[in-house]
Amino acid sequence: MKHALLTAAMFAAVLHGQANVIDLPRAPLGDGPFIFDTAEQHKIKVTVITKALDRPFGIAFLPGGNMLVSERGGKLRIVRDGVLDPQPIGGVPKVNARANAGLYDFVLHPNYAQNQWIYFAFSKPGEGNLSATVLARAKLQGNSLTQVQELYSTEQGTNVGGSRLAFALDGKILMTTPAAGEVEKAQDPASAYGKILRLNDDGSIPRDNPFVGKRGYRPEIYTLGHRDHLGLVVHSSGTIFNAEHGPNGGDEVNLIKPGANYGWPVISFGRQYDGSRILPYKEGMEIPQIVWVPSIGPSGIMFYTGDKFPAWKNNLFVGSARYGEIRGFGHLERVVLNDKFEDIRRERLLDDLHQRFRDVRQGPDGNIYALTDQEVGALLKIEPAP
Amino acid sequence: MKHALLTAAMFAAVLHGQANVIDLPRAPLGDGPFIFDTAEQHKIKVTVITKALDRPFGIAFLPGGNMLVSERGGKLRIVRDGVLDPQPIGGVPKVNARANAGLYDFVLHPNYAQNQWIYFAFSKPGEGNLSATVLARAKLQGNSLTQVQELYSTEQGTNVGGSRLAFALDGKILMTTPAAGEVEKAQDPASAYGKILRLNDDGSIPRDNPFVGKRGYRPEIYTLGHRDHLGLVVHSSGTIFNAEHGPNGGDEVNLIKPGANYGWPVISFGRQYDGSRILPYKEGMEIPQIVWVPSIGPSGIMFYTGDKFPAWKNNLFVGSARYGEIRGFGHLERVVLNDKFEDIRRERLLDDLHQRFRDVRQGPDGNIYALTDQEVGALLKIEPAP
Repeated sequence: MKHALLTAAMFAAVLHGQANVIDLPRAPLGDGPFIFDTAEQHKIKVTVITKALDRPFGIAFLPGGNMLVSERGGKLRIVRDGVLDPQPIGGVPKVNARANAGLYDFVLHPNYAQNQWIYFAFSKPGEGNLSATVLARAKLQGNSLTQVQELYSTEQGTNVGGSRLAFALDGKILMTTPAAGEVEKAQDPASAYGKILRLNDDGSIPRDNPFVGKRGYRPEIYTLGHRDHLGLVVHSSGTIFNAEHGPNGGDEVNLIKPGANYGWPVISFGRQYDGSRILPYKEGMEIPQIVWVPSIGPSGIMFYTGDKFPAWKNNLFVGSARYGEIRGFGHLERVVLNDKFEDIRRERLLDDLHQRFRDVRQGPDGNIYALTDQEVGALLKIEPAP
Repeated sequence: MKHALLTAAMFAAVLHGQANVIDLPRAPLGDGPFIFDTAEQHKIKVTVITKALDRPFGIAFLPGGNMLVSERGGKLRIVRDGVLDPQPIGGVPKVNARANAGLYDFVLHPNYAQNQWIYFAFSKPGEGNLSATVLARAKLQGNSLTQVQELYSTEQGTNVGGSRLAFALDGKILMTTPAAGEVEKAQDPASAYGKILRLNDDGSIPRDNPFVGKRGYRPEIYTLGHRDHLGLVVHSSGTIFNAEHGPNGGDEVNLIKPGANYGWPVISFGRQYDGSRILPYKEGMEIPQIVWVPSIGPSGIMFYTGDKFPAWKNNLFVGSARYGEIRGFGHLERVVLNDKFEDIRRERLLDDLHQRFRDVRQGPDGNIYALTDQEVGALLKIEPAP
């Protein structure tokens, strides 16, 4: 198998924070399709839809099955009838695309059929080296975004780990903001970084947010104490989960409760990069729902609710963008939960592909779609094998 | 690739405790040799010395390089000049070989050249379903153990997870005892289970043991609060480490301090098998030095001190006998530690072999030897590839 070595510059591009990394051989993605055995009854077929993406971040399905795919560098791509349009979508605001910054997640408004609003997050260039994490919305007309509206902006800062979006069942939009860089922001109630924010669909602040009226607290804060969190999902019951990068170990999926503090950088199941211990528990701070030590670099997450994989119903899928701290590369992790959303058992899927997985979403056809973010950026379709 | 499915009976044989397992395809071990790239400069060659072992547990090197290999079922095997003798060593006491019970670890006395004593641990049949974990010693004469002396015995019980042995720098022998079954024994100072025991080389109790004279405490206890711990190593500095199976997650390597309590079943980074949370921290109980969530099933451990792999010097190697909770099978994990023995980064080695690793030891030649415990029990030699 042909291997290529990561250069220092590539490291800088792919890694969050100051992870301890080592040069590893990397495996290019084959052309597929690939057939894999999995643990609970499903033989799966993995088809490569395209390898022509550049550091893809998120997938959003349009009605009818066409897919929007955001690229970190600032382009929005569209896949029509299973084919990537070589022409990017126009009208995307200029983004700060330094390091991990750039264009982030796209989601459709719950009433998209009526209002056609598409919401998205990006890193907006600010003064000097600073940028802000911004929530915007726009409408897709032909091959272009139109009526772009900036709805909300964090303060300017240097945290650029990315942002995921999700609509809660009550119609409010949730937005993750990073804090792997300026870690002290995560516990600072006057900063919008290292938080999950909760906003009305016009970007205004809901009056029932947990810290509204509390002195020193930004009222848009829903939860605090997060590091870089690149996974966010609302279960059909309304329960909210994020997926969060720990430091050296201590990756997390958290069950999100209004007003709760998820502990970064005070507590973690991981260590500092120099090896020193962080305590895993403190009264009044939340313990993660699902943990990884060592790190897998969790990224996009989803619950499977379709009919194509009956044995996977209600399982949580987590994309692992692991690279460098432990050999083996990323994978898709399937987590079986009990009725309290507690971790029962897990399975590593697609680890033999040796790719980093950046997002995973269920398609309207009940199949699973995933983005890889390695030497090439690929979109994969996962379906039952005959 | 040919796959075989584990039967329920095979599960019972290979698993500790009540792990949540699922039927997985298993990969047979090829004939090799295998060449692998690794992260830090070493291309390695893996040779299969033998596949004819039956559930091997531990390796002990004799002066000159011949190897003793214990088999869980009760046989002691010898590898002479790289060839497994088809005839087992005679004179081994009858062991209780139910489930995970059987013949465990063998180690040579530090003054073996003078006294020729070989120490070993085994599960000795007791009344009804009970057994005891026994420390014995014997001398090897020709093809047989002679002068077998039982030196120490735990009380009878049902914990049969295995026992590792190691001599500390002060000449005392350390012995791990299991507590994945009768978990309450681990915190019970009147039980010898779920402990590390410290004994003189004649099996008597050292007067400077931490609980000598403390009411209600067995004086042989060195540390308490352990689950099944199948790894034990003394670093050249004298620092002692064990490797311990967590429940559902929460596998540990612990830095062993006299009199300390390692928390099982009160604290763990893992969960119960039903998913319910165990708190990870309690004042007065030790936090693990190295953690795995999800579980890898850590088994034998060693520090590499040879010259064959210069970039691996002082790295900790941990055999992973993982099976079932997460797809991907076992591997050898290489852990890079800082000068406080804190976890800096890790690498998975030999994961592509899809085997369970039961023990790992450095040979007198500076190469690394490992036991796998899968459909076949194999002895592997790991050396630098040309």
